[in-house]
Amino acid sequence: MTLVTIDDIRAAAAIIAPAVVRTPLLPCAWSTPDRPLWLKPENLQVIGAFKIRGAFHALSRLPEEVRARGVVAHSSGNHAQAVASAARSFGVPAAIVVPSSAPQIKVDATRALGAEVLIVPMAERETRAQQLAEERGATLIPPFDHPDVIAGQGTVGLEIAEDLPDVEVVLVPVSGGGLISGVAAAVKALCPDAAVVGVEPELAADAREGLRAGERVDWSPELRGRTMADGLRAQPSELTFSHLRALVDDVVTVSEEEIAAAVPLLARRSRLVVEPSGATVVAAHLHRGAELPAGRTVAVVSGGNVDPALFTSLLAGTGDPARA
Amino acid sequence: MTLVTIDDIRAAAAIIAPAVVRTPLLPCAWSTPDRPLWLKPENLQVIGAFKIRGAFHALSRLPEEVRARGVVAHSSGNHAQAVASAARSFGVPAAIVVPSSAPQIKVDATRALGAEVLIVPMAERETRAQQLAEERGATLIPPFDHPDVIAGQGTVGLEIAEDLPDVEVVLVPVSGGGLISGVAAAVKALCPDAAVVGVEPELAADAREGLRAGERVDWSPELRGRTMADGLRAQPSELTFSHLRALVDDVVTVSEEEIAAAVPLLARRSRLVVEPSGATVVAAHLHRGAELPAGRTVAVVSGGNVDPALFTSLLAGTGDPARA
Repeated sequence: MTLVTIDDIRAAAAIIAPAVVRTPLLPCAWSTPDRPLWLKPENLQVIGAFKIRGAFHALSRLPEEVRARGVVAHSSGNHAQAVASAARSFGVPAAIVVPSSAPQIKVDATRALGAEVLIVPMAERETRAQQLAEERGATLIPPFDHPDVIAGQGTVGLEIAEDLPDVEVVLVPVSGGGLISGVAAAVKALCPDAAVVGVEPELAADAREGLRAGERVDWSPELRGRTMADGLRAQPSELTFSHLRALVDDVVTVSEEEIAAAVPLLARRSRLVVEPSGATVVAAHLHRGAELPAGRTVAVVSGGNVDPALFTSLLAGTGDPARA
Repeated sequence: MTLVTIDDIRAAAAIIAPAVVRTPLLPCAWSTPDRPLWLKPENLQVIGAFKIRGAFHALSRLPEEVRARGVVAHSSGNHAQAVASAARSFGVPAAIVVPSSAPQIKVDATRALGAEVLIVPMAERETRAQQLAEERGATLIPPFDHPDVIAGQGTVGLEIAEDLPDVEVVLVPVSGGGLISGVAAAVKALCPDAAVVGVEPELAADAREGLRAGERVDWSPELRGRTMADGLRAQPSELTFSHLRALVDDVVTVSEEEIAAAVPLLARRSRLVVEPSGATVVAAHLHRGAELPAGRTVAVVSGGNVDPALFTSLLAGTGDPARA
């Protein structure tokens, strides 16, 4: 299977520059000397997550007359807002198919970006999105399973390599694998000695198990749905799994308690509002040192779209109110 | 009185580059089209505030043999951590005189940076700091009343002008005036058509009153101490007031309620943990539009060192627990 290259990622970087924040690397005073840590705060993108990089790039690559017929996506999370925002930038219509279980706050945020939102039962969202795309002649923008999306997310890795060329470890959350595929393609091309390590919740560790087995494994949506890290409940496609096998050194896991504790740490010591999915990498840095190479470490903080009530209860140390 | 120049600020920028985060400008999706807003998030500096810029620059300008004898500062806030951090970078001792009213969390943070902390009654802190400096042959680093400190803070304005050359309004919190003096010196030199507007709490609006009167006015520490914006309780010196008169277009004020509402807005919509002082500029953008020029606006978010209990209660919309 053809992997995304550093040339693809460099081309994507030039295209998406006007639409994304070039996030800085933030040094952390609270990390230990043998593992100095920098954060790559993608929660500071306008939509609150790295997903705008891949979505904007994917839309930019559509022929103009195709793009003009509009785009469709199915997502209850950050990809919905990313596609809505990118479509607005290009002045084309976006229809987002959202499962009925999605929180109202995310539905409202997607509508506020000008997208049409269709709420459907969870089991129907893929078929409804495909049906909608066919009816309208619109293009379906997948959340991770596309080379243009992966190349867009890879610009995160390109920026890390530019800003810290002697980086030794890069920690990246793993869900569908689009982010880590792109980041690994960039980092391994530019900093071949650096380790790229994925991080998953213990409760959704299908990618770790698959890498150890040498082939993709399926965890049921019910199993993956247990983690509070709602952005990490997807699992790799053939395309992203090929990138993981070729380019990723390891995948480590973190517990729900470790994720829950990393959120207030990031608020207090790094002044960032981070969603549980984005905090997993910091939890891994703090608690999985024995499984990680030492040295200069960058943790990709993937997003900050956390439900206000959950955020407040994590700050108070009282855990996830939805599971109390 | 001699004002800090753009050349001073450019020289400072080169010196402090290794010690500071070059913070990006963050566009805000939630601002209105006629007043597009970008945040300059200085809460993302390692110590959580812009103060590291001025402190590091001031230490760098000391002759090496003078610096080696150490530095002294008196502060209960961000300047304490800034001087402690800069002293550690240079490998010289720092003694910080802290009033006994200072919260333990700030004392601990300053000690964690390797500084010696001396706790004294509020009224004695200036004399004790001077006495200490004399005894040890150490140098007193003032929080704002020094050209090297102002030039360091001015690098914030230099970066704004570099990143958004067609900026039309720059909003800056005003306390002792070091930050706005430096920012205005840079912005007026590089973007002469841009307005530089200070923001004060209504409860500590001495700079606004002084600018209208044409001379410095004194508000008692008791009056200034009423605002929850604990970083904005100082007042300008002759040196900073000269910069304000020459370079600042206006100073507007915001209420405690407006400040309290801006903190959760910044957490939810911009994913930033901001202290009340840093949130004043966003409150002004939202509520003082009638007093401000329209156009592309940058708000300097000065810091993010907010007491966790206060932050949690502001998120919950229940106000300041210390004043309940």
